[in-house]
Amino acid sequence: MKVKVKVVLKDGILDPQGKAVLHAINDLKFKGVGDVRIGKYIELTFDSLDQSLVENETKEICQKLLANPVIENFDYEIEELT
Amino acid sequence: MKVKVKVVLKDGILDPQGKAVLHAINDLKFKGVGDVRIGKYIELTFDSLDQSLVENETKEICQKLLANPVIENFDYEIEELT
Repeated sequence: MKVKVKVVLKDGILDPQGKAVLHAINDLKFKGVGDVRIGKYIELTFDSLDQSLVENETKEICQKLLANPVIENFDYEIEELT
Repeated sequence: MKVKVKVVLKDGILDPQGKAVLHAINDLKFKGVGDVRIGKYIELTFDSLDQSLVENETKEICQKLLANPVIENFDYEIEELT
């Protein structure tokens, strides 16, 4: 089973990396972009097929390891492998 | 309009950051995870509501700036703001 995790800065937390990318985008003459926020994307592959174990471990891994709950939010999707 | 971009390493490209996170997960006694791959997640906010402009600019920004096409794939979703 594959789990796709996104970790993003909370609203209101400054994102200097995003600002730098926005400058680069403007330097390349793209007109449309008004704001950029940068986050992390993590794919966890579980050997187990037990949905509730996967969900519990994912939540705990995000809280303890992948996200800093003071400044970041996380969000995940569980994807069944065919 | 908001565009959510994911940039991931191509299959077969070594991901030492993912390996490090996998070690940390195992050290924390989580049993289920077999593999970890780390990517980037970028949210672009467009001022424009023109779907085709947004799509074209997103594609070009990904190719020129956000992803390294030699080792990375990208993928995006366009989300209408309500």
